[in-house]
Amino acid sequence: MHPGCTVQELVDRVAGKWSVCIMVAAADGPIRFTELERAITGISRRMLTLTLRNLERDGMLVRTVYPTVPPRVEYSLTPMAAELHAALLAITTWAERHRADVAQAREHYDARTTA
Amino acid sequence: MHPGCTVQELVDRVAGKWSVCIMVAAADGPIRFTELERAITGISRRMLTLTLRNLERDGMLVRTVYPTVPPRVEYSLTPMAAELHAALLAITTWAERHRADVAQAREHYDARTTA
Repeated sequence: MHPGCTVQELVDRVAGKWSVCIMVAAADGPIRFTELERAITGISRRMLTLTLRNLERDGMLVRTVYPTVPPRVEYSLTPMAAELHAALLAITTWAERHRADVAQAREHYDARTTA
Repeated sequence: MHPGCTVQELVDRVAGKWSVCIMVAAADGPIRFTELERAITGISRRMLTLTLRNLERDGMLVRTVYPTVPPRVEYSLTPMAAELHAALLAITTWAERHRADVAQAREHYDARTTA
């Protein structure tokens, strides 16, 4: 088994599409449910709830309920999640830098294989 | 839209379970199909073929066919993929370091919520 794969389950879990979006959105400080809902394009309320619960269960997010009326609920990254966020940034930076290269590679490949 | 999400499609693609395993396996130098098949536990021949083709199409892998009998086929990372591999290592290092913390967080969460 390759070292990159032994931890694959965990990587899949925390680096999933919606988890990454939530961690990016929460990176600058505590964020509310409704703010997350607005910030993350295309996520359903159900999927947001589920992903938040999984991240909280994994020790990545702390959920704080303030006893206001209606109760205010905020999510913030744990130190462990903040570390992961830094590592994820390296990936998204890579993706931003190479997006055009990948598009070009696909064009070349498709031109070659359909010729 | 959050910056971490604009490139999400690309991240999903290249950071998918099997893609990561293949890039880890190819990180030390050119690797053959049969070696990949042995190195990556649980991958089917069909899924390996498909993932290799996608990575080649994305400009992440170079496929070289040597005119031996039978032909020898080797895959190697492109410079762009080697860069991504370095970034992925930060994620897997994180996951290795925090695997136990996540397991413990889950236990605590489950104990709290089923109590």
